[in-house]
Amino acid sequence: MIILLGASGYVGQQFAATLQKRGLPFFAPTRKELDYTQFDVLLQCLRGKKPEFLINCAGFTGKPNVDACETNWADTLQGNTLFAATVAHACSVQGIPFGHVSSGCIYAGAKIVIDGQTRVEKDLSQPAMQQLLEQNRGAFHGFTETDEPNFTFRRQPCSFYSGSKALGEDAIRDTGNHYIWRLRIPFDEFDNPRNYLSKLQNYPKVYQNVNSLSHRADFAAACLDLWSRRAPFGIYNVTNPGFVTSAEVVEMIQKILKPNRSFEFWADDQEFYRTAAKTPRSNCVLDTAKLLAAGVAMRPVERALTESLEQWRSAK
Amino acid sequence: MIILLGASGYVGQQFAATLQKRGLPFFAPTRKELDYTQFDVLLQCLRGKKPEFLINCAGFTGKPNVDACETNWADTLQGNTLFAATVAHACSVQGIPFGHVSSGCIYAGAKIVIDGQTRVEKDLSQPAMQQLLEQNRGAFHGFTETDEPNFTFRRQPCSFYSGSKALGEDAIRDTGNHYIWRLRIPFDEFDNPRNYLSKLQNYPKVYQNVNSLSHRADFAAACLDLWSRRAPFGIYNVTNPGFVTSAEVVEMIQKILKPNRSFEFWADDQEFYRTAAKTPRSNCVLDTAKLLAAGVAMRPVERALTESLEQWRSAK
Repeated sequence: MIILLGASGYVGQQFAATLQKRGLPFFAPTRKELDYTQFDVLLQCLRGKKPEFLINCAGFTGKPNVDACETNWADTLQGNTLFAATVAHACSVQGIPFGHVSSGCIYAGAKIVIDGQTRVEKDLSQPAMQQLLEQNRGAFHGFTETDEPNFTFRRQPCSFYSGSKALGEDAIRDTGNHYIWRLRIPFDEFDNPRNYLSKLQNYPKVYQNVNSLSHRADFAAACLDLWSRRAPFGIYNVTNPGFVTSAEVVEMIQKILKPNRSFEFWADDQEFYRTAAKTPRSNCVLDTAKLLAAGVAMRPVERALTESLEQWRSAK
Repeated sequence: MIILLGASGYVGQQFAATLQKRGLPFFAPTRKELDYTQFDVLLQCLRGKKPEFLINCAGFTGKPNVDACETNWADTLQGNTLFAATVAHACSVQGIPFGHVSSGCIYAGAKIVIDGQTRVEKDLSQPAMQQLLEQNRGAFHGFTETDEPNFTFRRQPCSFYSGSKALGEDAIRDTGNHYIWRLRIPFDEFDNPRNYLSKLQNYPKVYQNVNSLSHRADFAAACLDLWSRRAPFGIYNVTNPGFVTSAEVVEMIQKILKPNRSFEFWADDQEFYRTAAKTPRSNCVLDTAKLLAAGVAMRPVERALTESLEQWRSAK
């Protein structure tokens, strides 16, 4: 039996659905039923239920977006940092392996490889990067799991959300047997305020940038695959291979959904941060070679986007 | 046997000295010997040593002062928040009671009682408060352990240090059996960069404010007394009863040590924060009735200051 924490959230709901679909029995208590944020309560639950695996999807992401984390430091740290430690400690005591949903947002930018020289470029929204992308897309490489996160409290500036997630990874790194699954901007075929495809359609203006993305069901499936295959414990970037620009996704939306609106972009970063956002956003490319090497396949990001939009259209 | 964590720090050294003086056997590993910040390592140590009690003095206070915490968020949170949770979880698993050195700096100000009406005044450095202090010292009352901390991430503004300590208390509140011992501005008869009496003598200018203080040896003795008397677990303000203004302490220094210098005060808060400090400071009065009711006595703050300065003078 598997214990699923945070099952009511956007990612947690998906894990619940995927577990159900696979016929894997699980126990997904609400915090009201069982305040699993309290160590003693969680430990007692683990001792009683003796699960073979635990999945932690609980966290504090901020509503409507990560800017809310900037004014809720205590909740952000409790949800993303302290709770990660609580789960790791309780699982370690009972010898229960677990998976922790982390985030790729602890990175900014991409690795740019030109003529065999690698450098990190943190701001992919700048015109020079947009230009390079058109001329030499192959120069853009994702961060691997061994690259040190560069959008954290130790490598400021960062958002408070990103800092809390990175510190959550640090807090559990040496405790027990676990997977750290890094999600990056979830999307799928179902309209939802957390879905990147919904967000893009609802933003008054779009922020031009470059990102790796995670199809929500592909993400949950890949995470569970790592566990079912008994892949080595550790950190995994769990995104659909590749990356896209916001403009490319908007183009797909226009082509497939043919929405009755036009899309505008913020002129530049300055306009975006002055008008629409308070805290710096992580935009980044992640490398998925480790996931693939573990035998876990995800659709390339362009295909996952196209298929999601086609299903979206069919459902309308 | 007692385990003492953080024994190399200013407060930890005192606990070690007091335990030794009382003939209580203790084990005080350095982090180099034993990385007790790792849950699995600490748990194994507790399982091996089976201590009857554990004392956690470890924390991140910032050097030379709390301003350093503003630029070291990760270290501050790891030292004061996450590590408190780690200790609490490990002790709870093994059923070991423990004491955690917290701080009164999670409060700002005092409770002002006039004509039976109580209100909280957060800024005691303002002229109106200084005047009230001269006219009606009895109007100033300390915060009790049941008053909600008001200088925390949930009640901003606060310093990052204060926020991390308050969140550390929150993180352990419901876990295992423990004391939370709140220290407030340590001082004693030995010159040290952490000693308030040294600080006042070395500051170019003094910041005028009102505070409860903790004599370092009195503090450690009182904390250990709570444990030896088997006082009920919970939060205790462990300061010398009463409060003093910075000007009063300077006056005592002048009277007793007769230093070869004059003392100037910052004109006001604005000058202080513009010139000498980055982050808001906690200045506060704490109530010690709960400690006294538990049968643990500490010298009144004026006496503790006078006697410390007299011993300081004798040692010169």
